[in-house]
Amino acid sequence: MTDAGLEILGDGECVRLLGTTPVGRVAFSVGHAVAVLPVNYAMLGSEILFFTGPGLKLDAVLTARTVTFEADEIDAVGRTGWSVLAVGRAELVDSWLRSRAEALGLYPWAAGDRPYLVRLRPSFLSGRRILA
Amino acid sequence: MTDAGLEILGDGECVRLLGTTPVGRVAFSVGHAVAVLPVNYAMLGSEILFFTGPGLKLDAVLTARTVTFEADEIDAVGRTGWSVLAVGRAELVDSWLRSRAEALGLYPWAAGDRPYLVRLRPSFLSGRRILA
Repeated sequence: MTDAGLEILGDGECVRLLGTTPVGRVAFSVGHAVAVLPVNYAMLGSEILFFTGPGLKLDAVLTARTVTFEADEIDAVGRTGWSVLAVGRAELVDSWLRSRAEALGLYPWAAGDRPYLVRLRPSFLSGRRILA
Repeated sequence: MTDAGLEILGDGECVRLLGTTPVGRVAFSVGHAVAVLPVNYAMLGSEILFFTGPGLKLDAVLTARTVTFEADEIDAVGRTGWSVLAVGRAELVDSWLRSRAEALGLYPWAAGDRPYLVRLRPSFLSGRRILA
């Protein structure tokens, strides 16, 4: 299916593409505005795992619970690429999953304290590929 | 100033960094969820210009008016990079600015109809650099 030069991607292709890049963005409402903050992440099946420290992202997980995750890979010169949105419930996960995250090579990048591992289970996926 | 391994950037540095990359993301609320959609963009001074077609982004500009723009450049291997958020009023701009956008090399990537040029004037900037 296409939409004004964009190919609409199915859920399976969205999950596959999410597995191809290490950096995405977590987005959530903060009052009347929207915050978008990059994270490194790993996929465990169709679930998104990322680390965070105390702050806005953690507050969003603990309060709103539903967050948006976005990843894309776009070649501005070639005008090609894709983007995927995943919306779902986010929750802190316990230590057994932490060892699986580390086995997937997932560590927080920034120095400093990011001890919380978050799992986002997408209940809605939306992806588009740019058609040159 | 640092925050858990992140250097907090001043407004001038945020604007400078926004001028170094061609792809960013527009984020806005859609009901109870948040949408994040990539755009190519250009800076005109401290203002962000991007094209869009009919759809969610245009609706957000015409209704909410205040949108969030995010750009980042992150090297997941080297664990270095930066991210900038700009929140502000977005509005459709008229044709004289269109010729300036084209002079800046700004064109929509996706084929199809993206005739609307949007200007976002940041009223709030927030940037962070990852400290390795």
